[in-house]
Amino acid sequence: MARLCVHTITTKTLPIEQCLEEYPRRGITGITIWRQALEGRNCGTIARQTRDAGLTVVSLCRGGFFPGRTAAERQRAIDDNRRAIDEAHAVGAPLIVLVCGAVPGQPLVESRRQIAEGIAEILPAAQQAGVQLAIEPLHPMYADDRSAVNTLRQANDICDSLGSPTGLGIAVDVYHVWWDPELESQIAQTGAARRLLAFHICDWRTPTVDLLNDRGLMGEGCIPIRQISEWVDATGFTGYREVEIFSNRWWNVEPRHFLDQIQQSYATLYGSTMDHSAGT
Amino acid sequence: MARLCVHTITTKTLPIEQCLEEYPRRGITGITIWRQALEGRNCGTIARQTRDAGLTVVSLCRGGFFPGRTAAERQRAIDDNRRAIDEAHAVGAPLIVLVCGAVPGQPLVESRRQIAEGIAEILPAAQQAGVQLAIEPLHPMYADDRSAVNTLRQANDICDSLGSPTGLGIAVDVYHVWWDPELESQIAQTGAARRLLAFHICDWRTPTVDLLNDRGLMGEGCIPIRQISEWVDATGFTGYREVEIFSNRWWNVEPRHFLDQIQQSYATLYGSTMDHSAGT
Repeated sequence: MARLCVHTITTKTLPIEQCLEEYPRRGITGITIWRQALEGRNCGTIARQTRDAGLTVVSLCRGGFFPGRTAAERQRAIDDNRRAIDEAHAVGAPLIVLVCGAVPGQPLVESRRQIAEGIAEILPAAQQAGVQLAIEPLHPMYADDRSAVNTLRQANDICDSLGSPTGLGIAVDVYHVWWDPELESQIAQTGAARRLLAFHICDWRTPTVDLLNDRGLMGEGCIPIRQISEWVDATGFTGYREVEIFSNRWWNVEPRHFLDQIQQSYATLYGSTMDHSAGT
Repeated sequence: MARLCVHTITTKTLPIEQCLEEYPRRGITGITIWRQALEGRNCGTIARQTRDAGLTVVSLCRGGFFPGRTAAERQRAIDDNRRAIDEAHAVGAPLIVLVCGAVPGQPLVESRRQIAEGIAEILPAAQQAGVQLAIEPLHPMYADDRSAVNTLRQANDICDSLGSPTGLGIAVDVYHVWWDPELESQIAQTGAARRLLAFHICDWRTPTVDLLNDRGLMGEGCIPIRQISEWVDATGFTGYREVEIFSNRWWNVEPRHFLDQIQQSYATLYGSTMDHSAGT
């Protein structure tokens, strides 16, 4: 379980204080905190509680959503990303995952331009706060309103176009990229550029009945998670494997039972051979 | 309306005999026939009725689904594709659209290999029957069980790998490819290789509530249909624009009212400047 991290959204019916008890009690050492889980909390208090619980904060989810129809909308996004950087710093998260955004009907090339511009604008603040930014390419079924960045190649292109700055990288989520014919080579490329900053796992169910909230637990679907994990590890990545599951089905299950299932499926997936200490 | 074609599945509550009356009555000159619409009919009779109605059969939907876990399954797919070729020939369809297939959990590379193999196997029969085959790349959200071919680049690669044989080409459906960052260049490439055989239109709704049957009428969504049509026409394509809409919402509307809406949205989309006679 040494590389297992769970996203608070995965167990969203548990308030973060209970995640901070429940995860370490079971030997889960990594936590990725969604901003919703911090609402009404003091980030410094959560940071202290997390440390005291022996948990590593892997990342903060999420920043991004840079495109907008007007300059005012885009500025609001920038402001919100600056707040996310402050929160990440305060809560002890070394990384923010960026869901880059898209505006339905706005040309994708324009949204992509606005995304690169937005990242460039917040990057200095992130660098100063010691917080890395990870572009997460999203599945093409989210190209309408969630992200105009839908492949690893595009994410790499954005990093290149910004001059491969320190503190900017990529989050690989198997759900979003598993179908990509270039997946193996693009993972290698991402690793070679020292940009592979995070790795998210879950599964793709057949049939998928909801575009947003019908992700599967690892093993419930068709994604070759083990194969993709090997490609990721082959780049030298030793960080956490983060379980990020949006699922109306699983959210209706008692969260402690769900965590049992997650740990069991994680163990089945990686056995003892692939689980060494997370090196993040 | 000279380049407007409607798929029988778009008005699936109308039996094909009624499509053959209703489409031409409104000035629609192209029809793409789904095999379900032919069940219990004599293809020769439908061919004659179609001709008498002044309709052009644009294509038959659909062949494909080549991958299978066993040789017997793959052979059944081959046999079914041969039947599709016979039906296309009998009904007067010059083209079969291929939804290539995928098997959940089978590596995509293996499915792609089986797809190329399957196409190679049926191609001689198609050539002999004077029926073209068009690989239709499907949206990556169908990579689990409908198609392991999810981009135009992959479809072009398959054509190349088979030696660009006569009678094999590609169908471009805006719903499946609109998100692709390589779309413009891949359309140009498809055209330059003289492989762009069919063009399907509909729209992507936000939110999309069903992965299969929530397509939008043109104008209801975010796809830059006009822009993509211009890229398609720029290759020299003068064929039909085929309206293929799977929609529980629209299927609940009186089909004649739906056809009114289709014609109105088609006219809004293309005006008079882009609608010349279909040159298929």
